[in-house]
Amino acid sequence: MYDVDAIRAQFPILSRQVNGKPLVYLDNGASAQKPQVVIDAITRGYAEEYANVHRGLHFLSNLATDKYEGVRGTIARFLGAADEDEIVMNTGSTAGINLVSYGWAAPRLQAGDEIVLSVMEHHANIVPWHFLRERQGVVLKWVDVDEDGSLDPQKVIDAIGPKTKLVSITHMSNVLGTVVDVKTICAAAKEKGVPVLVDGSQGAVHMPVNVEDIGCDFYAITGHKLYGPSASGAIYIRKERMAEMQPFFGGGDMIREVHKDEVTYNDAPMKFEAGTPGIVQQIGLGVALEWIMGIGMENIAAHEAALRDYAQQRLNGLNWLQVQGHAPGKGAIFSFTMSGAGHAHDISTILDKKGVAVRAGHHCCGPLMEHLGINASCRASFAAYNTTAEVDALVDALELAHELFG
Amino acid sequence: MYDVDAIRAQFPILSRQVNGKPLVYLDNGASAQKPQVVIDAITRGYAEEYANVHRGLHFLSNLATDKYEGVRGTIARFLGAADEDEIVMNTGSTAGINLVSYGWAAPRLQAGDEIVLSVMEHHANIVPWHFLRERQGVVLKWVDVDEDGSLDPQKVIDAIGPKTKLVSITHMSNVLGTVVDVKTICAAAKEKGVPVLVDGSQGAVHMPVNVEDIGCDFYAITGHKLYGPSASGAIYIRKERMAEMQPFFGGGDMIREVHKDEVTYNDAPMKFEAGTPGIVQQIGLGVALEWIMGIGMENIAAHEAALRDYAQQRLNGLNWLQVQGHAPGKGAIFSFTMSGAGHAHDISTILDKKGVAVRAGHHCCGPLMEHLGINASCRASFAAYNTTAEVDALVDALELAHELFG
Repeated sequence: MYDVDAIRAQFPILSRQVNGKPLVYLDNGASAQKPQVVIDAITRGYAEEYANVHRGLHFLSNLATDKYEGVRGTIARFLGAADEDEIVMNTGSTAGINLVSYGWAAPRLQAGDEIVLSVMEHHANIVPWHFLRERQGVVLKWVDVDEDGSLDPQKVIDAIGPKTKLVSITHMSNVLGTVVDVKTICAAAKEKGVPVLVDGSQGAVHMPVNVEDIGCDFYAITGHKLYGPSASGAIYIRKERMAEMQPFFGGGDMIREVHKDEVTYNDAPMKFEAGTPGIVQQIGLGVALEWIMGIGMENIAAHEAALRDYAQQRLNGLNWLQVQGHAPGKGAIFSFTMSGAGHAHDISTILDKKGVAVRAGHHCCGPLMEHLGINASCRASFAAYNTTAEVDALVDALELAHELFG
Repeated sequence: MYDVDAIRAQFPILSRQVNGKPLVYLDNGASAQKPQVVIDAITRGYAEEYANVHRGLHFLSNLATDKYEGVRGTIARFLGAADEDEIVMNTGSTAGINLVSYGWAAPRLQAGDEIVLSVMEHHANIVPWHFLRERQGVVLKWVDVDEDGSLDPQKVIDAIGPKTKLVSITHMSNVLGTVVDVKTICAAAKEKGVPVLVDGSQGAVHMPVNVEDIGCDFYAITGHKLYGPSASGAIYIRKERMAEMQPFFGGGDMIREVHKDEVTYNDAPMKFEAGTPGIVQQIGLGVALEWIMGIGMENIAAHEAALRDYAQQRLNGLNWLQVQGHAPGKGAIFSFTMSGAGHAHDISTILDKKGVAVRAGHHCCGPLMEHLGINASCRASFAAYNTTAEVDALVDALELAHELFG
């Protein structure tokens, strides 16, 4: 039995007011709030158990190292990785995808080689590839979404040609909520010998993920969207791909020996983790993932599916509201514009006055916005702690905005 | 009047015991502990004021953005930068130096071009340049330190030849404590038209820094050594140099527009800050820097100079202890080996039993270790909260180790 009230009670910020109204936090696509266990882990990390990791031999350094390195196994378990050495810890998906771009793709791809992307990718999964286009003549091949926001996996597979060297695709759109059948794409890509990067920034937050089952080569996650600290994160990299990568960041920890005229590198995954890492953040991320697994991702997904159904029904009843994205099985993410209304920013400002926090803008999805023919939208995105009453609060606030702008 | 007891009382971890003994934390060169105000700022950041920054328009996002962006000005003030737009926020010196390597140096330097380094650089200020040696034939020119660990600035200046494109040098050695006269080096390098990167990982922690007075082009700092959160940091980049840089990480926030076949970039410094940043860590770093400035860096430096003098006197009295580094005006960092003793790791383990936390190893300084003719050393490094009684505790523990190994 999913007790959303008990879950809410674990998030201190959810009991606060904004603008004199109870906070209705529907900006989870941008970042999730943190449960008390995560905040406590951070406080304890700094107040009782802090030291730098790896190179110390004193009590606190060993303690911090054990806790920090333990998170690698937690992440591996969360993602269903076969081996924790396939996990590179970092600051989030942007760092993960840039690592793949600089460490794996840049030294391998030649002018004319192709990378296949969907039109609904986030800028974090676009701009690193634009760099390769600008700097070495790589070609970006775009796959459109259907009218309802669905992405036909066959279209992605058909886009894979003899010059395709990588498919890089989101698991769940941060604007449309569309869930991509990455397993089917990976199976076909593997047959053609093309690796697949899955941007799990949203996907890993809202559904059970098993990278072995998916069959992807890379799977990037962002800790702060997973109820963890800011600048926490990781990327799963299949062993064969990791063996093909050159180091990206240079510095401490990622080396074996440094001489004046020679440098040798540490074994993976340490080879790809330079310098003092985000020790306390990663420890906090480990606690956040344990918290998720304690509830059960399948239970969170079921709760969010119910929220999605209720929100769809309520929002579909507003005939002056245009929701973008109606793919079957979509996540509880709703992007919308309003007939006759001003800019999305104005709508979000009205909603904010009622305590309802949504995001407005292009959501880091320039090509998708062009595809949809809009400049900006509002986005309400749900998480494990949201309620149907908050859907009602959203609708009430939207009705007020419609009255003002309609 | 510097009240070290009052300062110590602000650090909760300093009242704890390890191995049944009061903690004597002398591993500050690796990372500093955090005052309660920093821990409180982090807790408040997550428990009351959290949201993603920049692209929201709701109350919490605006609040977090104001706090986060306010830190840029705090860092600029702390470093004496002329303009806060010369501050790129990141996760620390490793990120900062890699940004300069990938964003400024890699697209500009040709095979045969030279980078001048001192032999006492940290791997974070070596390996990014080794990448350029391995990948594009850049030549690393090394400047040795003198017998006592001093670095003659003239030797650095003399090493600058017609093919030198960058001098990259530490402000303070993390092993020897040597302070480098970077101002003299910068003035001469400027006359020769060669930019200078100063690795301030240690320097900014232990003495007042003014980048305008120093005249450097890049100055990298690490937040977790500055009493701030892990994975916080920044790099100062002079405007002219920033204008010469290409973007490094691709993702959200660093773009102006993203289309399928074109991307345009944001103005600096945002151009160099991709994706969701370490929001709460940077807010914590801002509080840490305000805490330092509230005490006054000149007062911390004076306190540490007194600790250095006392520690020098006591350690010099141990004729079975070899201290590496006796440069005049050095910082309160002591690297040492012991006659007849086992490995540095064994010494640090004995010290740990007495509650004294030091670091043992190569301290990420391979070339310096080779220069010194040792594989590893112990290092005791002091900070604002250390006391002469802790120097005594270190000496007592060393005497025990000497008895056991001597």
